[in-house]
Amino acid sequence: MVNAGTMNGSGNLMDFLDEPFPDVGTYEDFHTIDWLREKSRDTDRHRKITNKSKESIWEFIKSLLDAWSGWVVMLLIGLLAGTLAGVIDLAVDWMTDLKEGVCLSAFWYSHEQCCWTSNETTFEDRDKCPQWQKWSELLVNQSEGASAYILNYFLYILWALLFAFLAVSLVRVFAPYACGSGIPEIKTILSGFIIRGYLGKWTLLIKTVTLVLVVSSGLSLGKEGPLVHVACCCGNFFSSLFSKYSKNEGKRREVLSAAAAAGVSVAFGAPIGGVLFSLEEVSYYFPLKTLWRSFFAALVAAFTLRSINPFGNSRLVLFYVEYHTPWYMAELFPFILLGVFGGLWGTLFIRCNIAWCRRRKTTKLGKYPVLEVIVVTAITAIIAYPNPYTRRSTSELISELFNDCGALESSQLCDYINDPNMTRPVDDIPDRPAGIGVYMAMWQLALALVFKIIITIFTFGMKIPSGLFIPSMAVGAIAGRIVGIGVEQLAYHHHDWIIFRNWCRPGADCVTPGLYAMVGAAACLGGVTRMTVSLVVIMFELTGGLEYIVPLMAAAVTSKWVADAFGKEGIYEAHIHLNGYPFLDVKDEFTHRTLATDVMRPRRGEPPLSVLTQDSMTVEDVETLIKETDYNGFPVVVSKDSERLIGFAQRRELILAIKNARQRQDGVVSNSIVYFTEEPPEVPANSPYPLKLRRILNLSPFTVTDHTPMETVVDIFRKLGLRQCLVTHSGRLLGIITKKDVLRHMAQMANQDPESIMFN
Amino acid sequence: MVNAGTMNGSGNLMDFLDEPFPDVGTYEDFHTIDWLREKSRDTDRHRKITNKSKESIWEFIKSLLDAWSGWVVMLLIGLLAGTLAGVIDLAVDWMTDLKEGVCLSAFWYSHEQCCWTSNETTFEDRDKCPQWQKWSELLVNQSEGASAYILNYFLYILWALLFAFLAVSLVRVFAPYACGSGIPEIKTILSGFIIRGYLGKWTLLIKTVTLVLVVSSGLSLGKEGPLVHVACCCGNFFSSLFSKYSKNEGKRREVLSAAAAAGVSVAFGAPIGGVLFSLEEVSYYFPLKTLWRSFFAALVAAFTLRSINPFGNSRLVLFYVEYHTPWYMAELFPFILLGVFGGLWGTLFIRCNIAWCRRRKTTKLGKYPVLEVIVVTAITAIIAYPNPYTRRSTSELISELFNDCGALESSQLCDYINDPNMTRPVDDIPDRPAGIGVYMAMWQLALALVFKIIITIFTFGMKIPSGLFIPSMAVGAIAGRIVGIGVEQLAYHHHDWIIFRNWCRPGADCVTPGLYAMVGAAACLGGVTRMTVSLVVIMFELTGGLEYIVPLMAAAVTSKWVADAFGKEGIYEAHIHLNGYPFLDVKDEFTHRTLATDVMRPRRGEPPLSVLTQDSMTVEDVETLIKETDYNGFPVVVSKDSERLIGFAQRRELILAIKNARQRQDGVVSNSIVYFTEEPPEVPANSPYPLKLRRILNLSPFTVTDHTPMETVVDIFRKLGLRQCLVTHSGRLLGIITKKDVLRHMAQMANQDPESIMFN
Repeated sequence: MVNAGTMNGSGNLMDFLDEPFPDVGTYEDFHTIDWLREKSRDTDRHRKITNKSKESIWEFIKSLLDAWSGWVVMLLIGLLAGTLAGVIDLAVDWMTDLKEGVCLSAFWYSHEQCCWTSNETTFEDRDKCPQWQKWSELLVNQSEGASAYILNYFLYILWALLFAFLAVSLVRVFAPYACGSGIPEIKTILSGFIIRGYLGKWTLLIKTVTLVLVVSSGLSLGKEGPLVHVACCCGNFFSSLFSKYSKNEGKRREVLSAAAAAGVSVAFGAPIGGVLFSLEEVSYYFPLKTLWRSFFAALVAAFTLRSINPFGNSRLVLFYVEYHTPWYMAELFPFILLGVFGGLWGTLFIRCNIAWCRRRKTTKLGKYPVLEVIVVTAITAIIAYPNPYTRRSTSELISELFNDCGALESSQLCDYINDPNMTRPVDDIPDRPAGIGVYMAMWQLALALVFKIIITIFTFGMKIPSGLFIPSMAVGAIAGRIVGIGVEQLAYHHHDWIIFRNWCRPGADCVTPGLYAMVGAAACLGGVTRMTVSLVVIMFELTGGLEYIVPLMAAAVTSKWVADAFGKEGIYEAHIHLNGYPFLDVKDEFTHRTLATDVMRPRRGEPPLSVLTQDSMTVEDVETLIKETDYNGFPVVVSKDSERLIGFAQRRELILAIKNARQRQDGVVSNSIVYFTEEPPEVPANSPYPLKLRRILNLSPFTVTDHTPMETVVDIFRKLGLRQCLVTHSGRLLGIITKKDVLRHMAQMANQDPESIMFN
Repeated sequence: MVNAGTMNGSGNLMDFLDEPFPDVGTYEDFHTIDWLREKSRDTDRHRKITNKSKESIWEFIKSLLDAWSGWVVMLLIGLLAGTLAGVIDLAVDWMTDLKEGVCLSAFWYSHEQCCWTSNETTFEDRDKCPQWQKWSELLVNQSEGASAYILNYFLYILWALLFAFLAVSLVRVFAPYACGSGIPEIKTILSGFIIRGYLGKWTLLIKTVTLVLVVSSGLSLGKEGPLVHVACCCGNFFSSLFSKYSKNEGKRREVLSAAAAAGVSVAFGAPIGGVLFSLEEVSYYFPLKTLWRSFFAALVAAFTLRSINPFGNSRLVLFYVEYHTPWYMAELFPFILLGVFGGLWGTLFIRCNIAWCRRRKTTKLGKYPVLEVIVVTAITAIIAYPNPYTRRSTSELISELFNDCGALESSQLCDYINDPNMTRPVDDIPDRPAGIGVYMAMWQLALALVFKIIITIFTFGMKIPSGLFIPSMAVGAIAGRIVGIGVEQLAYHHHDWIIFRNWCRPGADCVTPGLYAMVGAAACLGGVTRMTVSLVVIMFELTGGLEYIVPLMAAAVTSKWVADAFGKEGIYEAHIHLNGYPFLDVKDEFTHRTLATDVMRPRRGEPPLSVLTQDSMTVEDVETLIKETDYNGFPVVVSKDSERLIGFAQRRELILAIKNARQRQDGVVSNSIVYFTEEPPEVPANSPYPLKLRRILNLSPFTVTDHTPMETVVDIFRKLGLRQCLVTHSGRLLGIITKKDVLRHMAQMANQDPESIMFN
């Protein structure tokens, strides 16, 4: 009877053990997830729901809700990301103008909004209206003169410093993860890495607020990259509301991929470009279902942004342009030159920025992030104010550079000498000689170019949110506009040269300097990020015409080739390497001739692999092994002699299982035998009750033979998203290869420091 | 001395054997390729070239040429695909008009070209000019009247029959693979299947010629799908010129993916849509490098087509439209209704078409393909001629249905009653009551809809080139236009109804029937093909505005959901299944709870797996095994007792190696021992010389354990593109799973006939 009772009791305890552990399935911070396992867990969940749904109508409705939750999450992400982007746009507009003056009728109006309601202004003076007062007018009642200028200058710097100080303090105190562009980390997270809190609610809040502050402070940075981070935080937030996504790290990453698409979609107003950006640049695992959902999220976000209408022009896109003249074959030459410039700029920027960031990491400099931000902001503000092209916000600058000089354009860049004999049609203005304003503008633009190039290198990587797209595009747009005006003037003054004769008659509108600016922007952005298709598609969505794809593509390809010649890494990959994240890039091709046996641990001469045996170790043995090593898991073999592989046990689950058993299962003591077989081994009558752990054993561990070429192993790790892989030789276990081993080996083969890979 | 000589000789022979066999690496017809192996072969090749390139400048230049050959192939594909598409367009134009009449000034002019040069016509009569004569005018000098009508009718049918007969005969005699749309087969080929000749030069030539013939014959089919096939043939042709692609089936498929993108690009004038189509619908393995190259090929193709300018309007796109009014929220309801219609049409079409094709395959019907084509052509021509909407070519019909009724539109569909009090602005024409012409058109369109629905089911799948895009779009466009005109008239006559009151004041232009036609076309195309993102992007490129993405997406999503509710398969997958191709769809999710042990062969009760042992079988044993079985390869184990896996030997390579050894290696006779170990086994002194075959042994065969869930196995097969996978249990070999086994198991689980999977 006692025996039967014990049996019964132990049976219950066994049943208890067969229930899933509450914590199993979550990963530790800075660890890599196992994609295959996450996927099979999701299939199990799905199967359960499908089976249950046949039981009752309520369960059926629940299963429908579960099936639709993906779309609901996308809708919510789109709505929130669009709203946040709109709010950020409005706030940046207002605060940027606050540095120069204030609206008397309503202080929360930006300069433009303030003067909308003004009815006395003509079109030419549309940004001068009595309600809008510069600080000097308001404080000392002077709008012109040296003292007014100095007062405005001083207050401009003061506001900039205030904004920057607030931003860096908020980031330091509340959310250290809110700094940077976030894209390198998001790429790493999407590839299956865990960084707790990186996409948390605090990061979302602080990043949104500080993004407004830093962009308004006039620093040379953009809001596009951080917007992707913000959108991913939204994605993480909403996916935590649905158990389908919150409990499965693999499914969660599908949502995050879509959120990244929504982020780019609102950053540029380019939903298709956003989806392709997520596909080409950010995502790791991108099934077709995600493609479609990303598209949905990107569209919802874009339309939410449009209904908020922050630019006041009902346009989706950030820089809407419309050109009236086609481009000519001969113009490909300057376009390709711009591509070369973009590639060189990309290389220069990446090298200098990484060198500076490494310096920041390794020297004392990194200890004073607030001071650094203050100093850079002060220098930026002091140098930027006198030059009208650096004083205004970077996106306004780009917008002006992209624009074609229409008949109504009042910008200095459009100060051409008009032929009085010629009537002025609205659209088609012929090439004209440049006026004094254009020459002035050229000098100022050249200075702005040098300034932007230098300051951006020091700005990107500081402890504040900072995006790269806008500064890169600005550099390219300035260079492009200068080249464009140059070509235009050359064509005007020398229209009898052979290269111009065919397509540029006097009185014709043959060169569009705005197009050169756009091509230059694409080239520089491409050089820095090495984006290709998504870049061209974003630019295509900005202009809405297929006409200009060839110039854009020529520049983007040239820029990529030139930059790749100096180094394969884009800025994001460079920062991933700098930070030592375990990121297995899909684009890197592994072409070395090493075998799995060269990479696996234990190496020759090292102590043998720590393994568990299926039926001969005691609880104490296992506990000692766990204590003495820090591996994430242990292979289980038939016996130490035969070394034939049975399965793999996770460290986490082993610890939990033994702890649970020790607490609740009576017979289990230190010298109980731990067995992983289906049937318990025959134990002598007086020995303690054995501990059955087959439940936590992964019976299908991934194995390769020792002769497998490493390129195949790398491919398998990449495509299946493995965390580790066991190495066998004719059925015997030889060793183990983890993702970190693979990354270290790749670094070594590329003559880099293998110790730069820091996380598991 | 003799001994040493033998050793030496055998050493040479060994060296000879160490050279690669000439044929190794090619696959047999109707077999599946091994992606991993192809990839590692390419890496080897690449490594060799890189190493050589350091030796001399000539080798360096050769390595550069090799690196650039990918781009050269893309350029060539783009140029040829664009040219062929242009030639096809021009030829179809001319031959379609030839059915009705002929141009007297130059017989090779189409109706439109003929009347371009005519200077006496007003805009309204632009298609009536003296140079163009209907057959009745030319032959009996009558242009009106019953006898002229009958003569024209008769000649129309005669031409159609002639074209169709020519087409089907050409296909039957010269290139049987030229029939159908080709997309199901291309999907299968891209997934790693070999169909020799499917993309050959004859297929290219005959498909191009017969495509012109069948489209001109007025059958209810389109040229879009076959154009993808034609472009892939171009891709195959050019890749055979470069050894990098011709000798590697994996690399060749990258080129073919890009070629498919170029095909869609020229079919619709939508390069981005083409790339996404290739990515979403056609391709299997689509690395980022291919994305970028596809985009390049698609652009080159599109620009080549534009410079040929077959539509005479300098437009890239097939159906260029421009709408002048936005859409309103309330219109989403009819758009979603159109989506439901599209989904139902898709389901109906797929079911009926597959049933009919199965009937054709299994009954006598399939034996008379020429007769079938003749009969269907005759029926089509007889019914189509009296109705003006079916008489013209389908793409013209779609173009007219998409168009907004502008001020200059002379079509019957735009016969609205004008308010004489209202001035006519060019763009913004208010909603007006429909005139008698519109009502007539509605009846004719309704008849055309029924006719198209029925005839398309019987047309698709005949032994002629036949695409589905255009007929599907036509069905949707007709339905959409009917609904659109209905909504428009409802809004005009009842503008005081609540739903119309907010956005449709009298005198406003609120409903655009052309937009409904476009939405309907997208819905029907989506229902048949289940394309999503690429469909919306293609449509977006046709209109060039983001404004209409929401209606299009609403319709496409609804259509997909409705159609998916009745069956997950799109028409291409359905045809793949019908033909029993071994295609492992990325979209199918395998959610059953089976394990590898349930799928592997040998099953329980079957004779054990045919294996080779590493050092105990004679040449004769191996030859007997090869003769008695038809497996593609054999696992090699340590011994029959231990069954520990050493590697895998391909049947093809075994046969070749033994044949070679028997011919050239003296000591090898029937009872020589075959050994796969590194060192030869110790053989008794008087036994024959052993045969060393380690060279052909794959030392890294892919293995899974018997407990691996089948969903993981399916995932591995899909992602790594395996051909077979060995199953082990604690180091012992248990069985083998081939791609065919996986597909059969999946069919079985989905309650389909596993025998429908026919190829290896």
